[in-house]
Amino acid sequence: MTISSEYYPNEPERPILKSIEPSEETINQLNELSKVFDTRAVYFIADYEKSIGNYICDLDGNYYLDLYQQIASIALGYNNPLLIEAAKSQEMIESLVERPAMGNFPSKRLPKQLQNLLRFAPNGQNKIWSGLSGSDANELAFKAAFMYYCGKKRGFKTKYTEDENASVMDNQAPGSPDLAVLSFKNAFHGRLFATASVTCSKPIHKLDLPAFNWPHAPYPVYKYPLEDNQEFNKKVDDECVLNVEEIIKTWYCPVAALIIEPIQSEGGDNHASALFFAVFERITLKYGIVYIIDEVQTGVGATGKMWCHEHAAIEPPPDLVTFSKKFQSAGYFFHDPDFIPNMKYRQFNTWCGDPARFLIANVICEEIVKKDLITHVNEVGDYLMSKLTKLAVVYPNYLQRLRGANRATFIAWDVENNEQRDELLALLKSNGCNVGGCSTKSIRLRPSLTFDIKHADIFIEALEKSLYELSA
Amino acid sequence: MTISSEYYPNEPERPILKSIEPSEETINQLNELSKVFDTRAVYFIADYEKSIGNYICDLDGNYYLDLYQQIASIALGYNNPLLIEAAKSQEMIESLVERPAMGNFPSKRLPKQLQNLLRFAPNGQNKIWSGLSGSDANELAFKAAFMYYCGKKRGFKTKYTEDENASVMDNQAPGSPDLAVLSFKNAFHGRLFATASVTCSKPIHKLDLPAFNWPHAPYPVYKYPLEDNQEFNKKVDDECVLNVEEIIKTWYCPVAALIIEPIQSEGGDNHASALFFAVFERITLKYGIVYIIDEVQTGVGATGKMWCHEHAAIEPPPDLVTFSKKFQSAGYFFHDPDFIPNMKYRQFNTWCGDPARFLIANVICEEIVKKDLITHVNEVGDYLMSKLTKLAVVYPNYLQRLRGANRATFIAWDVENNEQRDELLALLKSNGCNVGGCSTKSIRLRPSLTFDIKHADIFIEALEKSLYELSA
Repeated sequence: MTISSEYYPNEPERPILKSIEPSEETINQLNELSKVFDTRAVYFIADYEKSIGNYICDLDGNYYLDLYQQIASIALGYNNPLLIEAAKSQEMIESLVERPAMGNFPSKRLPKQLQNLLRFAPNGQNKIWSGLSGSDANELAFKAAFMYYCGKKRGFKTKYTEDENASVMDNQAPGSPDLAVLSFKNAFHGRLFATASVTCSKPIHKLDLPAFNWPHAPYPVYKYPLEDNQEFNKKVDDECVLNVEEIIKTWYCPVAALIIEPIQSEGGDNHASALFFAVFERITLKYGIVYIIDEVQTGVGATGKMWCHEHAAIEPPPDLVTFSKKFQSAGYFFHDPDFIPNMKYRQFNTWCGDPARFLIANVICEEIVKKDLITHVNEVGDYLMSKLTKLAVVYPNYLQRLRGANRATFIAWDVENNEQRDELLALLKSNGCNVGGCSTKSIRLRPSLTFDIKHADIFIEALEKSLYELSA
Repeated sequence: MTISSEYYPNEPERPILKSIEPSEETINQLNELSKVFDTRAVYFIADYEKSIGNYICDLDGNYYLDLYQQIASIALGYNNPLLIEAAKSQEMIESLVERPAMGNFPSKRLPKQLQNLLRFAPNGQNKIWSGLSGSDANELAFKAAFMYYCGKKRGFKTKYTEDENASVMDNQAPGSPDLAVLSFKNAFHGRLFATASVTCSKPIHKLDLPAFNWPHAPYPVYKYPLEDNQEFNKKVDDECVLNVEEIIKTWYCPVAALIIEPIQSEGGDNHASALFFAVFERITLKYGIVYIIDEVQTGVGATGKMWCHEHAAIEPPPDLVTFSKKFQSAGYFFHDPDFIPNMKYRQFNTWCGDPARFLIANVICEEIVKKDLITHVNEVGDYLMSKLTKLAVVYPNYLQRLRGANRATFIAWDVENNEQRDELLALLKSNGCNVGGCSTKSIRLRPSLTFDIKHADIFIEALEKSLYELSA
């Protein structure tokens, strides 16, 4: 009995490809949709009623083994029976038909809902503030960070000067001070205005948008395989750390916060050493800077820990850890009570989160614990990695810089260029696998946590076939 | 048969007050919640399972007539049977358990879902882009506006210069240009970073947050009653318009967009004349500026039109109209196809909205049409207004600047100061009515669209009693 067959006894044995060319119905539907929606980024139209487990079904009845899972945001696969049960509950119906303004009129169910979620918080975190998306989570974290940073300077008093109260209404200092968030080159933290200012992976995300004048430090670019390049990579780490400290000391305004992904995902699945993350704890403490870890894509199991930064054993823990995607519910975790602003209504909005998603998040996390899916993904990830390592010997150009050893199924590699990457993704699809890319020439694997050894075998077979076709 | 009794045959006849003092259970629950959540803004803990129609039930079994409705975001009242039915549908379950990355893998249901919503779009709008909250909707609209504004300058071509592509990665011009959004004093458009920069109602919303250097023009402050102060108010309009034009001509950077609420809500229920809104159509056209109407709080019927700016008959229609709250689903409407960015992945994020909320929005709007709730709220609003006008004669100090004539139930007035306002709200609660404030000394009414004449009578009775107690 495998994990997936327990949840999904009717999951297909393997991909089902009925018609590679889109049917007339699909073309019509796409045309219909184009009239009201930007369809230029559409991979295909999905039939979510028929999708099951690790297989996504399209409108033509093709079943693809899905290693992308809605841009890394489905944790357990499609149509999970326990999530369906949660979706039918009275608690869910309430959350939908009378969505509360939680800050003013919290439901009697809220204490339990938040306590439930906190059982799955990263090591050292025991408080939570919720939002609606990854971008939103990060911007809420920035707000908490700025309020904390300024609050610390004035001793967390609740009186503001006349000058502060007046200038803020004109968007000027001292009420609206010049403060920066430091992020990293190739980072992706979202696409709102503050998050776009810390995002630095592709021009397309930010062109024509006014931005805050905030700095991007270099993120390590390692040589692979890691075990053969330890000295070089250590130097890379050291240089990046020096650079960060230099920016903090010389930026035109105070750096109030540092935000970093444990693995840069959208930016190319770039990894950094455990040491790299630990050193920022020291640096942020030294300069009184808020340390924010963005676990939006890396969180909830797929890297072989519930939260990826737990691989680094950061001590004391980071100040704020943001989440979304596989957690379905978005927001940030924290532990220092001073991150609760000194006055009510400072961190506030109409909904303050979404209880419907709390319920989904809770079931997902409970299943991860109950079925020990972390151990499971580690096993499957090691298996996948060993297969990919062998394949890389046969196709070194198409499997460059293989990344994700000891990070479970959070695996990626590079091909030679953008065109080749897109070609490989198309071949994988024609061989029954839905896979995503990142950066310009990387392939990233983001299967669900119920992805089994048998799925890994199917994928490797499809990849082998695709690489053969690509090189033909 | 009234509207409310049709939906809610078991709605209480009038408020039920069991215990004004919070019970031990309530105190315990609040203490529990305080451990994981900022409870300083909590009015009371709600029991949403028991709440019904126009009555919100708290944990102690008190039923309050609710004229606040989750900060103006519940359209039809609590536990509406048709919304419950929608919440139980297969379509809803799908939306919850396999939340799609709609831009890449839209559901086969999406064309119909969006077409449904567009039936309720403001006059002249036939396209939609969806987000997750009012703040999010406005920031997405700003992105669309900036991309359009810059796109127009370069003829919507899809090639960017090397300088643009390089500078944007450093948050510098020309890739990240200095461009402004013009908003108004006392405006409220949200609390993210770009939206906080256009928000200008209270320092508390923005203190300690870095802001964009964007201008706030004066919003009309009329004398009431309007019919006795036409000449004065016309002058106010003219001065404000001149001021806007002056800012556009002299601001340090180009003003790319203008955002305005049809009625400033959080900022004090400030109204402006129909002419005021029409003139901005002319001005924004003259200067090539994007015209954004924020209908987050005013939209979906409560002002006596589906969308409040339709009172002003703006022609051609505004460029972007944002929505959230009572629409439950958030985003913006538009009609000019050039607001679809020139390249895919420019206006994009993981989820691109929330189909679960599309279903809720659709049922709400269908009911508004089917039951002609717009006519209904106009009748109830006129009735309320006539009662309040009479009461204002008796209590002129406690019912100043009565606002909302011909705006259905979207009614507000001022008392003398902040303390008195909070006292009046507390008295109203003790007399069975849950009512909200805005700005520093205003009371705002935001009942559901199913609020009936009988509810208006109960409210007026409670208000009369409260005013008597206040003046005692």
